[in-house]
Amino acid sequence: MVDPARKARERADLGFFFSPRSIAVVGAAREPGKVGRIIFENLAKSYKGELFAVNPKAEEILGYKCYSSLSEIGKQVELAIIAVPARFVPDVIKEAGSLAPKGAMVISAGFKETGIEGAKLEAKLMALANDLEIRILGPNCLGLMNPAKKLNASFAGSLPKAGKIAFMSQSGALCTAILDWANGGGVGFSKFISLGNKADIDEIDMLPVLANDPDTNVITTYLEGIKDGRAFIEAAYNAGLRKPVVALKAGTTSAGARAVSSHTGTLAGSENVYNAAFKQCGVIRAANVEDLFDLALGFSEQPLPKGRRLAIVTNAGGPGIMAADAVEQHGLTLANFDPKTVEALRENLPAEANVYNPVDLLGDALAARYGFSLDVALDDENTDGVIVLLTPQAMTEIVETAKELIEQSKSHKDKPVLTCFMGQAEVAKGISALQKSGLPNFVFPERAVSTIAKMAEYAERRNQIRPEIKRRPVNGLLVEEIINAESERGKIVGAQALKIVEAYGIRGPKTKLVHTIRDALSAATELKYPVVLKASSPDILHKSDIGVIKIGIADDVDLRRAYREILSNVDRYLPEAELWGITVQEMVQDAREVILGMNDDPQFGPVIMFGLGGVYVEVLKDVSFRLAPLTEADAREMVLETRSFPLLQGVRGQERSDIEAVIDALIRLSQLVVDWPQIKELDINPLMVLGADKGAVAADVRILLEV
Amino acid sequence: MVDPARKARERADLGFFFSPRSIAVVGAAREPGKVGRIIFENLAKSYKGELFAVNPKAEEILGYKCYSSLSEIGKQVELAIIAVPARFVPDVIKEAGSLAPKGAMVISAGFKETGIEGAKLEAKLMALANDLEIRILGPNCLGLMNPAKKLNASFAGSLPKAGKIAFMSQSGALCTAILDWANGGGVGFSKFISLGNKADIDEIDMLPVLANDPDTNVITTYLEGIKDGRAFIEAAYNAGLRKPVVALKAGTTSAGARAVSSHTGTLAGSENVYNAAFKQCGVIRAANVEDLFDLALGFSEQPLPKGRRLAIVTNAGGPGIMAADAVEQHGLTLANFDPKTVEALRENLPAEANVYNPVDLLGDALAARYGFSLDVALDDENTDGVIVLLTPQAMTEIVETAKELIEQSKSHKDKPVLTCFMGQAEVAKGISALQKSGLPNFVFPERAVSTIAKMAEYAERRNQIRPEIKRRPVNGLLVEEIINAESERGKIVGAQALKIVEAYGIRGPKTKLVHTIRDALSAATELKYPVVLKASSPDILHKSDIGVIKIGIADDVDLRRAYREILSNVDRYLPEAELWGITVQEMVQDAREVILGMNDDPQFGPVIMFGLGGVYVEVLKDVSFRLAPLTEADAREMVLETRSFPLLQGVRGQERSDIEAVIDALIRLSQLVVDWPQIKELDINPLMVLGADKGAVAADVRILLEV
Repeated sequence: MVDPARKARERADLGFFFSPRSIAVVGAAREPGKVGRIIFENLAKSYKGELFAVNPKAEEILGYKCYSSLSEIGKQVELAIIAVPARFVPDVIKEAGSLAPKGAMVISAGFKETGIEGAKLEAKLMALANDLEIRILGPNCLGLMNPAKKLNASFAGSLPKAGKIAFMSQSGALCTAILDWANGGGVGFSKFISLGNKADIDEIDMLPVLANDPDTNVITTYLEGIKDGRAFIEAAYNAGLRKPVVALKAGTTSAGARAVSSHTGTLAGSENVYNAAFKQCGVIRAANVEDLFDLALGFSEQPLPKGRRLAIVTNAGGPGIMAADAVEQHGLTLANFDPKTVEALRENLPAEANVYNPVDLLGDALAARYGFSLDVALDDENTDGVIVLLTPQAMTEIVETAKELIEQSKSHKDKPVLTCFMGQAEVAKGISALQKSGLPNFVFPERAVSTIAKMAEYAERRNQIRPEIKRRPVNGLLVEEIINAESERGKIVGAQALKIVEAYGIRGPKTKLVHTIRDALSAATELKYPVVLKASSPDILHKSDIGVIKIGIADDVDLRRAYREILSNVDRYLPEAELWGITVQEMVQDAREVILGMNDDPQFGPVIMFGLGGVYVEVLKDVSFRLAPLTEADAREMVLETRSFPLLQGVRGQERSDIEAVIDALIRLSQLVVDWPQIKELDINPLMVLGADKGAVAADVRILLEV
Repeated sequence: MVDPARKARERADLGFFFSPRSIAVVGAAREPGKVGRIIFENLAKSYKGELFAVNPKAEEILGYKCYSSLSEIGKQVELAIIAVPARFVPDVIKEAGSLAPKGAMVISAGFKETGIEGAKLEAKLMALANDLEIRILGPNCLGLMNPAKKLNASFAGSLPKAGKIAFMSQSGALCTAILDWANGGGVGFSKFISLGNKADIDEIDMLPVLANDPDTNVITTYLEGIKDGRAFIEAAYNAGLRKPVVALKAGTTSAGARAVSSHTGTLAGSENVYNAAFKQCGVIRAANVEDLFDLALGFSEQPLPKGRRLAIVTNAGGPGIMAADAVEQHGLTLANFDPKTVEALRENLPAEANVYNPVDLLGDALAARYGFSLDVALDDENTDGVIVLLTPQAMTEIVETAKELIEQSKSHKDKPVLTCFMGQAEVAKGISALQKSGLPNFVFPERAVSTIAKMAEYAERRNQIRPEIKRRPVNGLLVEEIINAESERGKIVGAQALKIVEAYGIRGPKTKLVHTIRDALSAATELKYPVVLKASSPDILHKSDIGVIKIGIADDVDLRRAYREILSNVDRYLPEAELWGITVQEMVQDAREVILGMNDDPQFGPVIMFGLGGVYVEVLKDVSFRLAPLTEADAREMVLETRSFPLLQGVRGQERSDIEAVIDALIRLSQLVVDWPQIKELDINPLMVLGADKGAVAADVRILLEV
């Protein structure tokens, strides 16, 4: 599943895409409005390195000499930007030959996105690029921007201001919309990348580049599909250790997924699997573009909160209530102020003000009241961050208040301050002042709260040490033997399937093979009544049909009778059968049924599922997913996040189930399917979970192998 | 619960608040910046009626003569606007005497919102106002605006443009923020009302006024609490038949609810009850201010869709996918174009365009391509509405495209068109053109989709005929008798409680009282084994402790033995007890347990709850609520909306339960608690639901009465 070429390329430095020493624009056109012309103009305007125009039909463009081809330049350029019709692009690459650039950005559309012919052209392009060791960005992309270096290598309009947000997107159109919002709202970027068809360079290549980029505080991306899920997770996890990675993933529902297929031909993974993958690698999922923007602003401008205790300062009760509502909905808490804080507020605010959290400064609050209150709220040790709300009332000093907040935020650099100046016309100047000084403003109180909630979550996650996946000792040889024996049939069930999970330490029912009634009696005594009795024979498939399996045997008398009946039924119905003996098997009782499953996802590989058995899975769809391999924490989260989890803790007078045994079984299942990639599907249904410390027993196992 | 004064007032015409023939501003101040001065200035600027200034300390203000009091004016004014310190307000009212105005708007703060003393002052004010028959808006409010009449009777800044949205809010501060957004975005209002403390006039009074207002297309409101829930529901239901009512309700979570209490002293109803109430009266709930704005724009500017089939037209794949995702998430469907539409698009769009829904016009789409495609999409009979997305790409004609969309929308007035020009800087001119022509623009595709989804829901609901509540025949006399007998204890359980629900047609277990073994045997044969046997005696409370109840009696032999044992246990342990006989009772088997409950909500009165028994209620909290009285449709929705509902349909080979019997029991329970308001709590737990057409049996009932 891992692209074989990737490994070789993965440490390649892509920095030259962002700060190339020299650039050639192939297809630099004379006609105003043409893509190649716009790009060349954008570069001519502010690019500081060597710039070449390639256009066989022109003498000069904007005072630059035109070369007829890349090779005619006579030396290697670092970056070629290609904006000629798609069918000519392979020739441009090929012609460069020994003077091939280090990288090429292919702006031209008309490749994979248009159908089979285009896909062939794209394959041809990539074959040539691989031969000449040229890294390709695109095709079908808008280009990229590095505002800090004044590099606008795109036809996407004017350069945004320099900022700390990196953005990369598969959709060029979304790039244009995002740039327009950013320009309208004064938002800056560190790097802005249109990935296009991702024939070569994709998010997985860019993540480490952006993680190492000192100008970038937060990495944001819009995804439609991921080809190599595992590599993405690894790259995103590693990037996430350095800075937050925020992803907007489209194509979440089946209607959306249809649109993805018709749009880029990439396969949209199932919603559940993406959610599991993002959770495991710490990618922060944005619900929509708005959310992406909010998160980008919060993460890029403000420090991470050290906890979840939030203070709210407002000049209006209603919005304060909305913020308090949101605090609870997002799993944060309203900070419980230190008595000193309450005292300070009481002394300095009017008598009618609310000095508890949310702090209501009242409608006539001037700038100084805001400044004082933010100061004491930030000083309070019980506060991890503050949200400041302002409504433009008759006396409100909008710009002055913004200045006060900026000052207080600057002198408390360890705690995040998010603002919400509510309105548009009157508040505009205040918002603009806030944004210029790195205080992000949110349109509505809920948005500020949900942003700080995600910041708190990220902070918690980043502080955790990456858990090691500890291998359990297992009997791999036995598994290999069974899989080899069964590989042709492609399906393993019954005793053989049980043996496989047992080899990985998930126990099946206890059994004893006996040959006499006396041995059967002592086996039953050992296993404890009630027991199950079965004829053990390779020749008998449907045991219950002919009366050679007896369940619920309660005592010695029952057992003697059942033993004789089984023997006589074998004699009567299958006189030729080879009889290995009689199996005495424990009957698992007082257990709670759960289901453990595994499925092989085309993009992410083995995915583990957990749910409570019966109606909980089938009717309530109450299941959780994680990608294998599972850490202990993953397995625990899987169990905890199901709604029906409390049933395992024992409710209504029932005994607590052995939750640890379920977690252990999940980890062992994960180890099994990672060790044996031949396994494409596996269900343990049910796993019978006994009372606390009593373990769990796999009652039935079904395995599908790769065919 | 219903305010006794309300009935008398409810048909009162409040129109003079919005178009008063004369206004006096009491507290019209000379000092610039003072509230009374701002209001007077705002009125002097554009109010067309007679305007008086009342200020005993001034001669004239802005060229208007100052009167020392209302009575000094010498005639009755329709509306007095009072902006003097709170403590003087009652005197202002009192002094007016026989020249009391029809209505008074009390701007002054310092009443109920400040605590007990303020609440007393407010009560004093209202007593005087009731005596003099003055309707009061406020106190502690910003005032109101009627932009179409150029009436700005507020200190909330400049008059917004005239529009079709009515807004009323308990929170004055939110009013200022909403106005500022509206002014920034060019949004207009029909009426804008700050309700303040709602001492007299509240949402319930305003709803019929706004429902009858020809300038208003949609009624929006921000609520923190409702005093008289039933009256609100009735008013909102009636208003909703004429035009949509959109409410933002704050204080939804417990953190928020704390803030509500400290803010206005109103009680926040529980989230579940509010949701049930809004569903039943058709109020559209906005999730936040943003949502309120979006819904107000969609409803006020565009026609309602006739169905849920949506077309999407876009110049960018990514946003198209987001919109398609949202379509599914919000219960809409992507319209399946008529072949003629597909053909027309295919003939007129470039070959690479997607001619199926979502229609992708490609990044180089000019205005004409948009216009043509919107035209055919609107013409298609399979389309109920269209969402048009635009990203500002290199060649995009933003303003021209807006014009094309406006034209097409105007020539297809029967179907809604919502736009989403994504961006801020470049797209601004296009958005402004759209808004001026009544095409609402949404910041993100999801928002347009969620708005049209609510519009479709409202259209469906409004077309339904209000269901009658049909009374079931019941035995009210028996209930009265039992309630009277038990009213002192305040609690009814056991057989008496069962009798009450039985009197309302919810059956309890079948029982026979017998006095001989022979009669017991024939009773058991009639009821069918297994049965339960109990001593029937008013003197025996805990029957199982002393062996006078026997369950699971399987046959005649069992029954004889049990009968004798019960008699001998009564003899042994309670020789003095009065024995009425022995009760033979059916044992309900093969039933699914559900819970029906009722609770008396302080704001909304009797609320009915439904859930599946056991873990489904206790662990999964899978319950639904509606206010009594229930219509048949309400009861059915209650059952259908629980997640565990499929269990009643029969899953995993189980029989389908008698769902109709559950619905019938809910309706009968509703009738019972409406008929007998003494009942404050009632639980039928469990109601044993038998197989299809076999009915349901209340196994245990617990009733709490008003004490």
